[in-house]
Amino acid sequence: MPRGAGTFELTPLEEIKRRVRELQNRMEEKGIDLALLLQNVDLFYFTGTIQKSYLFVPREGEATYFVEKNYERAVMESPLRCIKVASLDALPNLLCEYGLKGKRVGMELDVVPVSLYKKIRNLFGEWEVLSISTEIKRIRSIKSDFEIRQIKRSGEIVTEVFSKAKVCLREGMSELELDAILTSLGRSLGHQGLVRMRGCNQEMVNIYVLAGDSATMTSCWDTPISGYGMTPAIAQGSSARIVGRDQPILIDYGAGYNGYVTDETRVFVIGRLKDHLERAWRVALDIIEEVESCTRAGVLPFAIYERGQEIARKEGLTPNFMGHGEEKVAFVGHGLGLELNEWPIISKGNREPLQSGMVFAFEPKFIFPGEGAVGIELDYIVRDDGLERVTQFPKEMIFL
Amino acid sequence: MPRGAGTFELTPLEEIKRRVRELQNRMEEKGIDLALLLQNVDLFYFTGTIQKSYLFVPREGEATYFVEKNYERAVMESPLRCIKVASLDALPNLLCEYGLKGKRVGMELDVVPVSLYKKIRNLFGEWEVLSISTEIKRIRSIKSDFEIRQIKRSGEIVTEVFSKAKVCLREGMSELELDAILTSLGRSLGHQGLVRMRGCNQEMVNIYVLAGDSATMTSCWDTPISGYGMTPAIAQGSSARIVGRDQPILIDYGAGYNGYVTDETRVFVIGRLKDHLERAWRVALDIIEEVESCTRAGVLPFAIYERGQEIARKEGLTPNFMGHGEEKVAFVGHGLGLELNEWPIISKGNREPLQSGMVFAFEPKFIFPGEGAVGIELDYIVRDDGLERVTQFPKEMIFL
Repeated sequence: MPRGAGTFELTPLEEIKRRVRELQNRMEEKGIDLALLLQNVDLFYFTGTIQKSYLFVPREGEATYFVEKNYERAVMESPLRCIKVASLDALPNLLCEYGLKGKRVGMELDVVPVSLYKKIRNLFGEWEVLSISTEIKRIRSIKSDFEIRQIKRSGEIVTEVFSKAKVCLREGMSELELDAILTSLGRSLGHQGLVRMRGCNQEMVNIYVLAGDSATMTSCWDTPISGYGMTPAIAQGSSARIVGRDQPILIDYGAGYNGYVTDETRVFVIGRLKDHLERAWRVALDIIEEVESCTRAGVLPFAIYERGQEIARKEGLTPNFMGHGEEKVAFVGHGLGLELNEWPIISKGNREPLQSGMVFAFEPKFIFPGEGAVGIELDYIVRDDGLERVTQFPKEMIFL
Repeated sequence: MPRGAGTFELTPLEEIKRRVRELQNRMEEKGIDLALLLQNVDLFYFTGTIQKSYLFVPREGEATYFVEKNYERAVMESPLRCIKVASLDALPNLLCEYGLKGKRVGMELDVVPVSLYKKIRNLFGEWEVLSISTEIKRIRSIKSDFEIRQIKRSGEIVTEVFSKAKVCLREGMSELELDAILTSLGRSLGHQGLVRMRGCNQEMVNIYVLAGDSATMTSCWDTPISGYGMTPAIAQGSSARIVGRDQPILIDYGAGYNGYVTDETRVFVIGRLKDHLERAWRVALDIIEEVESCTRAGVLPFAIYERGQEIARKEGLTPNFMGHGEEKVAFVGHGLGLELNEWPIISKGNREPLQSGMVFAFEPKFIFPGEGAVGIELDYIVRDDGLERVTQFPKEMIFL
């Protein structure tokens, strides 16, 4: 039986209670009386299940979880008491019955679509609705031990996939062929199947296998590297291009285990690499080592970003760092959890101190137009005394 | 090189022009002066590319396509003239410059999140904003020859994946193992990697391999069958459960080629199947044959739905048809195109006549609690004189 398969942990009640209390603290600060959560990932975080459902969190007291579909599955997966509801229209009466009321109501306005919002406004006409998305993102950015356990399992899949890549990669195969092999391995190790990103139009395939200048192709997404993909309809990831000798082959893989994603990048080479590319990879490693040595809870993300920029500049690699030309991104790392684009963002402007329990992917990458990209992406857990790595990484470029 | 890989067609200019004209006709009918499109799939449909971008369609004249990121890629993929824009904030001035104005503006309010909508309202204060989602869904429901060509390529992947399933399926393997093999095959044949659904919280893994009573597990989604999945965080699809003898093994696979999805289901059996399950499968086939014989452009979807219900009732299978207990769905088919949940829906209430060029998946399925599910799902193109099948199907349950 595949490792991890079916052995996932359900979210414990204590975990859910703590999360709800955190939300209530933030609601208190913002003067929100009642929160209504609808987004699938937020529901999973605060209930342990994803149903067609409505989670109401009052500023004080217990959360009330109304489930439209599927009630049985909600009961099976969530430690909260689930209350069956026929449809959204039945909610106003139920709120009265359960004593849930509020003048200022928090909703996830970054993701809830206008039509659904309007329907809710009509049902609860007197509500003043505020966004509670920032508060939720902030709470979710600090991972519990339970969550870190899932992240480490997710990281194990990453480690195994990169080991397999080393064995399977051959000159003359297409990016897509290797993609198919590695996707399959990840899945058989218990990959949950999808890797989520928050927001309308945000989506991510599980793996990018990008040979040579495929890795210099960018896209609509706020990422330094995208690849061509198989079609302009999904303009990211592996393509039919052939893997060659003496070029960087960049593999960016996103695992997902029990909801939790990890996201790392390795560079493989069949043969040799031109000196300037190999040197750039070593600069990426320098940046990694520098950041590993000086990052801990309390450090400001923008300082990490600046440090990376500084090292790149000193090596004359500014034009290639985190994109090229007009396509540079303004970050060098991003939070990980139930979604790929969580907080903290290790970006130019982020002055909110890192906190113990945050998890982020750090990805110094250099892009050379016409040639390819080199770099490293590793996932870290922030601790009071430093960074803990999620996966194994030999700190060497992988030559075949 | 994998078939299909890199050989996709870009959307032709004439195709885009026709689609825009269709939208303008609908805008005329609804009294909308200007449409602003933002959703990735609608952008692909009306521009041929997916960028961080803003497509403005005036009621008359040409569409104007403002691209924020990635401009180069937009130019490469879209036959429209692309105009570079720094950010959303720069649009009001550009609209003046390009003479784009409107009092009544259409937007995709079923998918655009509230925060983005509010930002747009602030920028274009005087706009009255209406939903244009229904009009877009209606246009997109009629497929052109170009689109049907992509759908047929997508169907070829489906056919090959089911052929492979027949070869690979063995007693004692896990659902996930077979999932991994078939996902890999599909990808290597040019599967685009993701299968899209429209709407907040809508998501779909590429394949469900469901052995025995796994196929009786439902979920939050409006589908008759979901499976356990690997985690409550992605509560659909294959699990670690073991494939056994003498049980229905239901495989539901969604291919995606050059944007276009196909979605079919087959049932495999290792050994023998209990009589009542085999009989139910034959009833599904009866429904399929009945519908194939009497469906063409002009037929009302609800009549097809009723016909299916009627045949199930006559055979005493109403309690099992399209779900069981309270978990029945109110449809027996759904439109396919760039998304899995397109129009037409073959549902209880749908009285809009089928039109030539519509494409839908038809999926009579019977669910037996504690035992499993049997059924068939096939994709069809609606023609003036009947239905055209997208894939090959031998009309036999597959015994191994």
